[in-house]
Amino acid sequence: MYSLYYSPGAASLVVHWLLIELGVPHELRLVDTQAKQQKSAEYLALNPNGVVPTLIDGGTPLYEAAALVLHLADRHADAGFAPQPGDAQRGAYLQWMLNLANTLQSPLRLWWYPQDIDESLADAVRDGARRKIEATWDRLDAHLAANGPYLLGERLSAADFYLAMLMRWTRSMPRPGHEWPHLAALAQRMKARPSFRTLYEREGLTEWA
Amino acid sequence: MYSLYYSPGAASLVVHWLLIELGVPHELRLVDTQAKQQKSAEYLALNPNGVVPTLIDGGTPLYEAAALVLHLADRHADAGFAPQPGDAQRGAYLQWMLNLANTLQSPLRLWWYPQDIDESLADAVRDGARRKIEATWDRLDAHLAANGPYLLGERLSAADFYLAMLMRWTRSMPRPGHEWPHLAALAQRMKARPSFRTLYEREGLTEWA
Repeated sequence: MYSLYYSPGAASLVVHWLLIELGVPHELRLVDTQAKQQKSAEYLALNPNGVVPTLIDGGTPLYEAAALVLHLADRHADAGFAPQPGDAQRGAYLQWMLNLANTLQSPLRLWWYPQDIDESLADAVRDGARRKIEATWDRLDAHLAANGPYLLGERLSAADFYLAMLMRWTRSMPRPGHEWPHLAALAQRMKARPSFRTLYEREGLTEWA
Repeated sequence: MYSLYYSPGAASLVVHWLLIELGVPHELRLVDTQAKQQKSAEYLALNPNGVVPTLIDGGTPLYEAAALVLHLADRHADAGFAPQPGDAQRGAYLQWMLNLANTLQSPLRLWWYPQDIDESLADAVRDGARRKIEATWDRLDAHLAANGPYLLGERLSAADFYLAMLMRWTRSMPRPGHEWPHLAALAQRMKARPSFRTLYEREGLTEWA
């Protein structure tokens, strides 16, 4: 049994989505981020970064959304969401997971929390983050155009769920990820999965449906 | 046979170090970053991010240093640098790899390349990055104090090599990582490995020896 500390639409979303897809027993624990519950002493004891998600696995609290995706996809390898070591696509799978973390999730954090750098320079920090994010969409769209429809070609992997979540986060930006045609096509495929409806119902989400 | 595109002391260092530790056949290909060779059309065809490292594995170019570490440690699991799926420490291992990428490598990039955000705000961006990096050292040192000497306790893993490289990158910052006592102890253990001397000789490094 896994327990997932989550907040609707936050970085916990991809972990929740994968738990549904994998069909493994899990329970959800809502973290009230408006009330700053993720900064409470109780939560910080589980995750000293003070952010969601945290996944309790066999009594051990684990954090970092991309790490949890890697962990679950390998732990339940029969589902086929992670090419396994020895598979010719294993390296590319790991590359994309880290590349999405570095070139999307990281600047997206600056876009949402520019005060992490400097409150008084929020506009400039957001502009810089936006340029980096849009350059990543250019690069990813070109990759999908040449090698899609998924990041690993014909093969769906956990990295596509992560990419869909990050695309969702840009829905209100001046140029959302889904304005790029091959990214839009990937988003449509991911949204068409029955698990996406379940996820939205459980988290009470409506935007980007 | 692996081929590693590298530049001395760059993010390729941890991949090079692991190749030495694993004792697997590999060749090195020097990228002249002063001459901006990493932005050449030839290199960009291998790695559209235009940074080192790139690892050629079975003819496939792969990038993202942390992903290459994960890939090699799993591919050569007998060396014991990565707890394997099913091992109780697998989740923590992945967590630390991603946590180092997100909370150290990412702000370190801003520290070294503040122009990624805004050239005219370089000082403020560097100050913000520095605060994040120092907060990470606080958190990691507390973790090692309670659970060290390595990130996974008594068990050395690939994540410690990655951490040592990132600590090395801060050697000229106002407060280098090795000013924190438990991080310093980890650095000493990692530097004492015979592979570290080989690595330094091959890359022609002298600082932080």
